[in-house]
Amino acid sequence: MSNLYDTANQLERELRQSAEFLAVKEAFEQVQQQEVAKKLFEEFRDVNVALQKKQLSGQEVTDEDVEKVQELYEKASQNELIKTLTEAEQRLNIIMQDINRILTASLHEVYQTN
Amino acid sequence: MSNLYDTANQLERELRQSAEFLAVKEAFEQVQQQEVAKKLFEEFRDVNVALQKKQLSGQEVTDEDVEKVQELYEKASQNELIKTLTEAEQRLNIIMQDINRILTASLHEVYQTN
Repeated sequence: MSNLYDTANQLERELRQSAEFLAVKEAFEQVQQQEVAKKLFEEFRDVNVALQKKQLSGQEVTDEDVEKVQELYEKASQNELIKTLTEAEQRLNIIMQDINRILTASLHEVYQTN
Repeated sequence: MSNLYDTANQLERELRQSAEFLAVKEAFEQVQQQEVAKKLFEEFRDVNVALQKKQLSGQEVTDEDVEKVQELYEKASQNELIKTLTEAEQRLNIIMQDINRILTASLHEVYQTN
C-alpha cells in the first residue's frame, strides 16, 4: 500500500510545480492585493458555496438564485485580475479532470457488464 | 507536463493492482453471477443515479425519493453478495478519498488567505 501513497504524493509535488498551478497561485495573489477584485471574488465564492449547499441538501434552486450568480459572474468577469484567475483555474481544472479520468478508468471497467 | 501524466498513469496501475481494487472486481463478478443480487444491484444503482440527476438539476428531493432509496438499501444489504461488494467498495473509497485529499492539498493552500 505504501507504494501507492508514495506515488500519490509524488504526483502532488509535480502538480505543485506545474506551470498551471503556479499561474493560479500567482493570479490569486494578485486578486488578494486589489480591494475591488478581492471583494468580488469573495462575494462570488460565497454565493456559489450557498448554491451548492442548497443543491446537495436537496432544496430547489430558484430562478432568482441562478440570476444572482449570473449577475455576479458578469460583474466579476469584467475585472481583469479575476478574469486572469478564472482562466488560470480553467487550465488547471483540465489537468485535474485528466488525472481524475485516468485514476477512475479502471473503476469504470469493473462496472462494465458487457 | 508529460511527467505529471506519467505519474498519474503509474498511480492508476498501482491502484489496479491493489488488494482493495481486486476485491471490488471479484465481488462485482460474484454479484453478476447471481440473478437476485444482479437485479437488486441494478435497481439500487438506477434509483441512485436518478436521485443524483435530480439533485444536480436543482430539483427538490422528496421524502418519497428518500424512502425508496432506503427501502432498496435495506433489501440490498440483506443479500450477502451485495453486502460483500458494498464493503469492498467502501474500503476502496477510503483510498480514493485519500488520493483526492493528497492531490487537492496544494489547491486548498493557495486559497487560504491568512
